Amino acid sequence: MIVVIQCKDRVGLVAAISGALAEEQLNIVSMREHVDKMENRFFMRLELEQSCPAAALGKKMHALLPPDAVITVDPIPGKKVVILVSKEYHCVADILVRHHFRTLGASVQCVIGNHSMLKDICRRFDMPFYLVEHEEALGKSVFEDRIIEIVGGYGPDYIVLAKFMRILSPAVVAAFPMRIINIHHSFLPAFAGANPYRQAFERGVKLIGATAHFVTDELDEGPIIDQQIIPVNHSYTASDMIRAGKEIETSVLARALRLVFEDRVLVYRNKTIVFE
Amino acid sequence: MIVVIQCKDRVGLVAAISGALAEEQLNIVSMREHVDKMENRFFMRLELEQSCPAAALGKKMHALLPPDAVITVDPIPGKKVVILVSKEYHCVADILVRHHFRTLGASVQCVIGNHSMLKDICRRFDMPFYLVEHEEALGKSVFEDRIIEIVGGYGPDYIVLAKFMRILSPAVVAAFPMRIINIHHSFLPAFAGANPYRQAFERGVKLIGATAHFVTDELDEGPIIDQQIIPVNHSYTASDMIRAGKEIETSVLARALRLVFEDRVLVYRNKTIVFE
Amino acid sequence: MIVVIQCKDRVGLVAAISGALAEEQLNIVSMREHVDKMENRFFMRLELEQSCPAAALGKKMHALLPPDAVITVDPIPGKKVVILVSKEYHCVADILVRHHFRTLGASVQCVIGNHSMLKDICRRFDMPFYLVEHEEALGKSVFEDRIIEIVGGYGPDYIVLAKFMRILSPAVVAAFPMRIINIHHSFLPAFAGANPYRQAFERGVKLIGATAHFVTDELDEGPIIDQQIIPVNHSYTASDMIRAGKEIETSVLARALRLVFEDRVLVYRNKTIVFE
Amino acid sequence: MIVVIQCKDRVGLVAAISGALAEEQLNIVSMREHVDKMENRFFMRLELEQSCPAAALGKKMHALLPPDAVITVDPIPGKKVVILVSKEYHCVADILVRHHFRTLGASVQCVIGNHSMLKDICRRFDMPFYLVEHEEALGKSVFEDRIIEIVGGYGPDYIVLAKFMRILSPAVVAAFPMRIINIHHSFLPAFAGANPYRQAFERGVKLIGATAHFVTDELDEGPIIDQQIIPVNHSYTASDMIRAGKEIETSVLARALRLVFEDRVLVYRNKTIVFE
Repeated sequence: MIVVIQCKDRVGLVAAISGALAEEQLNIVSMREHVDKMENRFFMRLELEQSCPAAALGKKMHALLPPDAVITVDPIPGKKVVILVSKEYHCVADILVRHHFRTLGASVQCVIGNHSMLKDICRRFDMPFYLVEHEEALGKSVFEDRIIEIVGGYGPDYIVLAKFMRILSPAVVAAFPMRIINIHHSFLPAFAGANPYRQAFERGVKLIGATAHFVTDELDEGPIIDQQIIPVNHSYTASDMIRAGKEIETSVLARALRLVFEDRVLVYRNKTIVFE
Repeated sequence: MIVVIQCKDRVGLVAAISGALAEEQLNIVSMREHVDKMENRFFMRLELEQSCPAAALGKKMHALLPPDAVITVDPIPGKKVVILVSKEYHCVADILVRHHFRTLGASVQCVIGNHSMLKDICRRFDMPFYLVEHEEALGKSVFEDRIIEIVGGYGPDYIVLAKFMRILSPAVVAAFPMRIINIHHSFLPAFAGANPYRQAFERGVKLIGATAHFVTDELDEGPIIDQQIIPVNHSYTASDMIRAGKEIETSVLARALRLVFEDRVLVYRNKTIVFE
Repeated sequence: MIVVIQCKDRVGLVAAISGALAEEQLNIVSMREHVDKMENRFFMRLELEQSCPAAALGKKMHALLPPDAVITVDPIPGKKVVILVSKEYHCVADILVRHHFRTLGASVQCVIGNHSMLKDICRRFDMPFYLVEHEEALGKSVFEDRIIEIVGGYGPDYIVLAKFMRILSPAVVAAFPMRIINIHHSFLPAFAGANPYRQAFERGVKLIGATAHFVTDELDEGPIIDQQIIPVNHSYTASDMIRAGKEIETSVLARALRLVFEDRVLVYRNKTIVFE
Repeated sequence: MIVVIQCKDRVGLVAAISGALAEEQLNIVSMREHVDKMENRFFMRLELEQSCPAAALGKKMHALLPPDAVITVDPIPGKKVVILVSKEYHCVADILVRHHFRTLGASVQCVIGNHSMLKDICRRFDMPFYLVEHEEALGKSVFEDRIIEIVGGYGPDYIVLAKFMRILSPAVVAAFPMRIINIHHSFLPAFAGANPYRQAFERGVKLIGATAHFVTDELDEGPIIDQQIIPVNHSYTASDMIRAGKEIETSVLARALRLVFEDRVLVYRNKTIVFE
C-alpha cells in the first residue's frame, strides 16, 4: 500500500504521520521524505507492508496535517492511460509491448493518432486506435474537441504524448493538470525549437539527450521527470543523430512512465521530486 | 545535525524516532529510511535543521529503540583520516588537493607509504609522510606494527588505502572494522586477481571499472561503497586501459569518500546502504 | 558499398587497397583501420560512395593482399537472421518491432522457441514460430538436430540467442562460427554462473550490466561485441535487479545487432574490433 | 610519429597519402579518416611506427594533395601551454598535478590569474604565477595587453582557460585561432547565460553537464571538443549542483586536453572531428 503526501512543512510532520500509521499497526517498508527549504514544502512517499481502508486512513491523516495537505492513500495500482501519437513508432511500440506483457504498470485504454501510420501496430496488439486528423479547414478546436471526446470516454489517469507532434492548446492542458506526459525530441532546454537534431548536428555536439516532462502551457517547459543522454561523434550524420535520439527517447519515456505509474513523482510548481 | 540509526525493524520505529525529535522541537530537513525485509533490519539517516546536545538525544533515542540499535548522533563533521599509499599518485594527489582546499570533508592527518615516491607530493602540501618499507628479512608483522604505531598516534576515524598495494593481515583489519576504505583496481568481482587490466585487455572488454569498498578479511570482498565504469574499445592497449582505469579509480574513490565522510553509508553484514 | 578486410599486417597495405579503389574511381567515404601490433594483424572497414561488381573488386584485392586475407566486398545489406528464444519476451519483442518497422537492418526469418510462451507475440507480427521442446527422454542431440534442421531451411547469416536458456553443444557452435550472437544475463566475466542477479544482490553491487558476445565453445567466453551497465542501489530487491537487467539486456543486444548487421564488427581470436 | 591532414575531398586521397608513406617504408599503426560529405572535406590522423624527417615528408605530401591541404607532420609531442585562471581551483589543480607527474601530455609554462587566490597552489608546484588584475580605471585593453605580453614571452601552443571568468576580446581570440581552450560552466547550449546552476536548479533538471570547446568570437559558441554529464536529483541544492558541476568540469577539461595534446582533434568551421 502506497501513501503520497505533500504539504507546508512544520516540525512534527513525520512524527504525526508515522504515529498514525503505527496506531493502525501499519509497518513502513520504505519511507522517502524531502523538504524543500526554500519553498518550505514537505514531500513524502511511504510503502506500507499491510493494507487498510484507504478512505479512513486518508481522513485520519488530513486531521493531522496542515490544511493544504495533498494526500493520496493507495493510488490506483493499474492506472488507466491514453496514448497520443503521430507517425513515429518507437515510443508507442515500446509501450504496447510492455502493456501486452503486463510490465508497463498501467493499462493502456486506446491510442489516438493524427495520422493512420500506427493503426496497424495497434491492431496487432488488439489496441483500439482512433484516427483524428487535423483538418485545416475545420480548425484546431474541432480537432481537439474530437480528441477530448474520445479521451473523456475512457477517463484515463494520464495522457501520454508518445511523439505526438501537435501542440495542445491551453484549455486541453488545463483539463489534465500534471496528467499529460510528453517526451521531448531534444535535451531541454537546449535546441528547444524546430529540428533540434539538425541544430545539434550543425553545432557538432558530442551528446544528445531527451527529456520526459509534464505538459504545461509553456511549451516544453513543464516539470522534468527524467533526462538521459547518449554520446555521439563527428561521424554521425543528422539522420544518425535522429536514430540515436529515438533510442534515448524510448528509454527516457519508459523510465519516466515507470516512475509516474509507481507514484514516485511528486510535483510542486515547476519541479518534480522523484523518489526512485 | 545528522543522526544515523540502524536496528532490528518493528512497527512504530519512525513514529518513535520522529516523535522524540518533535518533542525537542527539532525539524527534519531530510529523512532517508530503508528496511531490509529479508534481514528485518531498519536503517535511517536524518538531517536536522537545529542542533541540540548529542549525548542527551542519543540517550533518549536508545530508550525508545530495540536494544541492538546503533545510534550515531552528530557524527564528527571533520573526520580524521590517515592515507596509505605505494607508488601511484593519482588517488592520493586528488585527496591532497581536496584536503588542501578544504573540500574533502575530512582532515588528512598524514600519509604512510611503503615506497618513497610520494614523499615529495606530500611535502608540497605540508603533509607529514612516513616511509615504512616492507623488509622481507623482518617480516610482515614488523612492517604492520610500524604502520599501526603511526596510525595509532593520530587516532583516525578512517584509513584510506589510496592504491596501497600490500594486503593487510586480519589483525589489522580487525582493529579497524568498516573503517578501512580501499579502491580496487578492477570492476569487482570481475578480474579480481593479479594484473586485471591485462586480463581485461586479453578478454577484449568494452568497459572497465573500479570499486571502492570497505576492507574485510576476505580480500577485495568487503561491502561495496561505489562502482563506476568507463567505456574502452579495441584501440586501447593494455597501458591505455591502465590510464583509463586510473581516471575511474580517482573518481570512484573521491565519490566514495564524500559519501562516507557525509555519513551517508551504513553497513550491515556484507552490504552497504548508501543514502545519497 | 562496404568492404571489410583483415589480414597479416605489412607496410603498404593501405596504399595497395586505396590505390586499387582509386583506380576504379571509387571514393572512400569512411575508412576505419586498426593494427593489432601484438598480433601483427591488420583490420579495415571501408564505406565507398559508388558501387561496382563485387566479385571483380574482391579478386583484384586478393591479388594485392597477403594470402591469408579475409575480404568481404559488399556484404549482403539485409542479412537473414533466425532467433532462438525461451520464455522471456524483452529481447525478442524489441527485435520483432524493429524488424516490423524495417529498422533492424536485417530480415528475421523465423523464431524458434523451446517453450511456447512467445508463440503469440510472433503470430502478431506474422513471424513463423517453431516450438522445439527439449525432451529429456529423447536427449539433447534430438533437440538440437530439430533446431538445426529448421535453421538450415532458412540459411541465415546469423543466429541470435535472445534469452535462449539452453547451452548449445560444440557441434552446433562449430557449424556457425562467429555467427551466433548471445546476450548474457550479467556483466561478464563477473557472476558468470547461475542466478547472477541473486549473486549481484547478495554482493550489494552498485552497477549491473549485460554483455552481447559471439558464442564459442567456452561458455559465455566468446568475443565481446558490446557491454553496458545500469546503476542500482540498496533499495533494489533481487527482482528489481532482474527488471533493470532486462532493460539493459534489451539495449545491449539491440546495439550489438546494429553493429554486426552494419558490418562494423571484426573478430580475431577471442576479441572484436568494433568500428563504430 | 603522427601525421594530421585536412583538405578538400577527392577520389584517391588515401591512396596518394598511404602510397607516399609506403614508399618511405613507413608503417601505418593507426589510421583514422573522416569525410564530411556535406562540406566535401577530408580529415585524417595517422600514427606511424617509424620516424623520418618531418619537413621532407610534409613537402612530399603537399605535392600530392589539393592546394588547400593543411598538413601537420610530427606535431610537437610536448606542447607548451599557458593556463589562465580566476578563483576556482578544481581545474587548474588537476592540470598542475598531471603536469607534475608528467602525465598531462603537455608542458605547462606558467599560470596567469586575475586574482591571487591560486598563487599558492602554483608555488607549491614550482609553477610561475603571474597576477594580472583587471583594473576598471585602466580598462580591458591594458588588462589584456599585460596578459598577451606574458603569454608572448612563453610562445605557447595552447592557452587553457581553466575557469578564467573574464571574456577575452576578439583581438586576443584572433591572435590564437583554435588555440584557446575553455571549459564552460554549463551543458552548452543550455543555460548559456549567467548563473547557469541557479537556472538548472530552478528548472529542476535531472542532469548537469560541462562542455570543453575552442574559443571563438561568439561567446561559448566555439567548436565543441568534449561534453559530459552527471545525474542530479531534487535533493541537490543549488550549491550541491555547483559542487557536482565542478567534478564534471574537471573531468571534461582533462579529457579534452588529452585529446588535443595527442593531436586527435581537428577543426573545420564550427565543428570538431575527434579521432579517439
